Amino acid sequence: MGNLNLGQPLWSTCFLIATIAFGFTTSPTSHAQERPTSAGLPDAELITDLIAANRILADKGILDGFGHVSVRHRLDPKRFLLSRSLAPALVTADDVIEYDLNGVAVDTEGSAEYSERFIHAAIYEARPDINAIVHHHSPSLITFGISSVELRPTYHLAAFIVDRVPVFDIRDALGVTGMLVNDSSRGRALARTLGERPAVLMRGHGTVVVGPTLPVVVARSIYLEVNARIELDAIALGGPVVYLDADEARAVLAEGEHRAYERPWELWKKESSSQ
Amino acid sequence: MGNLNLGQPLWSTCFLIATIAFGFTTSPTSHAQERPTSAGLPDAELITDLIAANRILADKGILDGFGHVSVRHRLDPKRFLLSRSLAPALVTADDVIEYDLNGVAVDTEGSAEYSERFIHAAIYEARPDINAIVHHHSPSLITFGISSVELRPTYHLAAFIVDRVPVFDIRDALGVTGMLVNDSSRGRALARTLGERPAVLMRGHGTVVVGPTLPVVVARSIYLEVNARIELDAIALGGPVVYLDADEARAVLAEGEHRAYERPWELWKKESSSQ
Amino acid sequence: MGNLNLGQPLWSTCFLIATIAFGFTTSPTSHAQERPTSAGLPDAELITDLIAANRILADKGILDGFGHVSVRHRLDPKRFLLSRSLAPALVTADDVIEYDLNGVAVDTEGSAEYSERFIHAAIYEARPDINAIVHHHSPSLITFGISSVELRPTYHLAAFIVDRVPVFDIRDALGVTGMLVNDSSRGRALARTLGERPAVLMRGHGTVVVGPTLPVVVARSIYLEVNARIELDAIALGGPVVYLDADEARAVLAEGEHRAYERPWELWKKESSSQ
Amino acid sequence: MGNLNLGQPLWSTCFLIATIAFGFTTSPTSHAQERPTSAGLPDAELITDLIAANRILADKGILDGFGHVSVRHRLDPKRFLLSRSLAPALVTADDVIEYDLNGVAVDTEGSAEYSERFIHAAIYEARPDINAIVHHHSPSLITFGISSVELRPTYHLAAFIVDRVPVFDIRDALGVTGMLVNDSSRGRALARTLGERPAVLMRGHGTVVVGPTLPVVVARSIYLEVNARIELDAIALGGPVVYLDADEARAVLAEGEHRAYERPWELWKKESSSQ
Repeated sequence: MGNLNLGQPLWSTCFLIATIAFGFTTSPTSHAQERPTSAGLPDAELITDLIAANRILADKGILDGFGHVSVRHRLDPKRFLLSRSLAPALVTADDVIEYDLNGVAVDTEGSAEYSERFIHAAIYEARPDINAIVHHHSPSLITFGISSVELRPTYHLAAFIVDRVPVFDIRDALGVTGMLVNDSSRGRALARTLGERPAVLMRGHGTVVVGPTLPVVVARSIYLEVNARIELDAIALGGPVVYLDADEARAVLAEGEHRAYERPWELWKKESSSQ
Repeated sequence: MGNLNLGQPLWSTCFLIATIAFGFTTSPTSHAQERPTSAGLPDAELITDLIAANRILADKGILDGFGHVSVRHRLDPKRFLLSRSLAPALVTADDVIEYDLNGVAVDTEGSAEYSERFIHAAIYEARPDINAIVHHHSPSLITFGISSVELRPTYHLAAFIVDRVPVFDIRDALGVTGMLVNDSSRGRALARTLGERPAVLMRGHGTVVVGPTLPVVVARSIYLEVNARIELDAIALGGPVVYLDADEARAVLAEGEHRAYERPWELWKKESSSQ
Repeated sequence: MGNLNLGQPLWSTCFLIATIAFGFTTSPTSHAQERPTSAGLPDAELITDLIAANRILADKGILDGFGHVSVRHRLDPKRFLLSRSLAPALVTADDVIEYDLNGVAVDTEGSAEYSERFIHAAIYEARPDINAIVHHHSPSLITFGISSVELRPTYHLAAFIVDRVPVFDIRDALGVTGMLVNDSSRGRALARTLGERPAVLMRGHGTVVVGPTLPVVVARSIYLEVNARIELDAIALGGPVVYLDADEARAVLAEGEHRAYERPWELWKKESSSQ
Repeated sequence: MGNLNLGQPLWSTCFLIATIAFGFTTSPTSHAQERPTSAGLPDAELITDLIAANRILADKGILDGFGHVSVRHRLDPKRFLLSRSLAPALVTADDVIEYDLNGVAVDTEGSAEYSERFIHAAIYEARPDINAIVHHHSPSLITFGISSVELRPTYHLAAFIVDRVPVFDIRDALGVTGMLVNDSSRGRALARTLGERPAVLMRGHGTVVVGPTLPVVVARSIYLEVNARIELDAIALGGPVVYLDADEARAVLAEGEHRAYERPWELWKKESSSQ
């Protein structure tokens, strides 16, 4: 983990050197495709939080070797930041790539890219209120994505799904595919199913969770998984289940979705960095 | 974890310095509200055990980023001790605040407070036999709080719930709310549902466990969770289930609820401090 | 864990010093009860394995703060070795006490004793083929102890329960009690239900597993728990389940119950000592 | 872990010294049976990956004290490499033995052998497309091996079981046995049930997973287990379940089974080596 030195924003430094030495923001590429320009140096805190988000969700078992986390660039809403193709637990500041809303990289520096970056691109395009996105394969949520039983909020920490979690069935939208959302048209179909909601289940594949900030999207990812386990157990008990009342859920959210999860975010950062 | 040095009662030292330097026990505050007076310096062992209780329940997964543990002050039954707003795993002696039974702090030293401190205040007020309280969001117990299936004692370590665990539905008591017990009237409604029992489930929210000492409330929190998992599995097996006989449960308790859990308490303290 | 130095048989040394200095084998005690004589110094390897068995089962979550492991003395079949009252994960060679088959200690050196040592005493008395015993509260097996669904062997590593696992209901044998097997008559009632089998479930309490050696009793404890989880899941799937055929199970055992579990024993010892 | 120094191919060095000093490839043995000749020094990377595969699957709980992983020799398709009888988590380069397709060792150097090496021998003989094999006792898959409910692909990472996972019932093939595949005829019966598929469940025993490379067989072992948990939960929910469409699964595989799992393989190697 030598590359992740939160005290020294290495990524920023590299970026700066690259910008000075190679005219990075307008660098020609060896690819035929036209590269977008950079929005400029992202702030170090945002990169630090992006790395933390990757590690936290790996530490909690929400992300395994696959899946990814992105954040919108603060200097330009038409750019977002995402790691090169790498297991989330291994991501460092040096691995972060800047993308435009077509999923085209400013500069990959020769690295392989996540083939499903179009999930992120299409959602940032469709949802100006969203600044952070997670795509994962957490098992309990795949379960709900292939079941006729709907995911519903069981407790206040899942109040954010008061308007339910839609299921995106790629076969309905696009016929027989290799199941991956690996181009813009697939990304946009997924974004349409997501609509204005905070999450979407992908049938036979995984989940996408979105939020206004990295701490919120991380917390939503964790509590959506916990909520799935509670619902599974409550249904197994056999009696009727009382889900969160819609009015109550809205009242929970009106008080400010758990103060933006500041309290657990501090804990999770500490836990995942001490690994 | 540099702040938690059990060999040196830092908290006491800080408290003492604060008392000498700033006239702490009668310190004026910047809030309009009248601050209660301090009951005086709590003994170091109690603070050490309070920190241990926080860490043990975090280590066991009963507490996550939310939830809290409190203990009644030994010098004054009208005062109790609770951390400032912080994830339980991170609590150190320096974070402990003294409260009165209205949930008003002697001195927050500018820290944010747990909004649900009123759970603790109201129960200490209603239950002179209780000296330690835990509020948590452990999933298996949320399951029972939203199910029509009642939590029942499956084995001797859960004998303490022989008189059952009531469910507090905040909607029945107070209508549509943001689900939090964040004022005295909500705290008192919860305390009424708890009655003379050792625990209460909060529908769509979490659980409160109470006890005469910190080791007992910690052990009850852990074994209530284990009991929930056993009951879930026993029901899933499909055949009739033999729960603990009420007379047997009372006989278990009459022999002195597992010698106050001294044996596991030593283990849990060691496990959680080596993290 | 400074007391457990497997390279230096501290226990033996202490024992030797005690014998020389205090005439340990015939030492008078401060208790009214007549103390049995010692069978002499147990070999260091047996003590090392007894400590390992305690730690392995704690490491695997089979034992928590309660429960215990014992081994029969090699020099005298009427003596066995068991820790003083202590959580199994914390047991060191210095904590081991020698007992006779009435559950009376040769010398407790002032330590508190496990109140359920009579489980061990009565079974060593009834079963000359047995040299090691575990009593634990592992949740999946408590589930089967309170269910009408019987525990059955699902795979070859559970072949040893081919003759089933009986359930001891202390209420049937002894009426309303505090659920503990804390005297000789209760121990003997339990031993009668165990009969010639390798394990007995205690309704609303826990499990006793027995075996010819410490590695075998540890392995049986672990695989009985795994078998319970498999059976729970297989029943939840809903279709008919094919359990191990009795003839097959006997053929498995006839080949020498998994070579006495030598292979996992080496692993488990290493895992639990590196904690 | 002192023996496993990935920077220094100790195994290769030992092998070389052995070859020079003792004419290893034609060394006579003390056994009556004729020993096969060695295919020569295997490349160090293959040995490194074989050790990593053992450790990864132990780290993930797929392998415990029993079970084993093998890889086909690159210099001779009629030879494969497998540890001496040892818990997988403890395997080092020094423990690896070279075998022929009858399960006869080139030289055991006096070590005990896995009695079920015939699983590997028979499958390498029957399946020239396969270069890596795992045999394990992972509980969720034993569940499906004894149930009438069939294991089916729930998501794209389990697309490789599109043609289902057959169940080998040794009793049907060979009558009452000790359940072990410990000779060539049993190995060949198992290989026949496996056929051209990537895995076979062994009723009342465990699972065999096969693949073209070590990273692929490790990933298949992990995702088959995850798939089993998802299917168990989806069935427990009670509603109809939508499994992966066969055409979709084939499309997933046609795009190159998850790029040979390069991304998680890097993660898993790192995780298991830092233990």
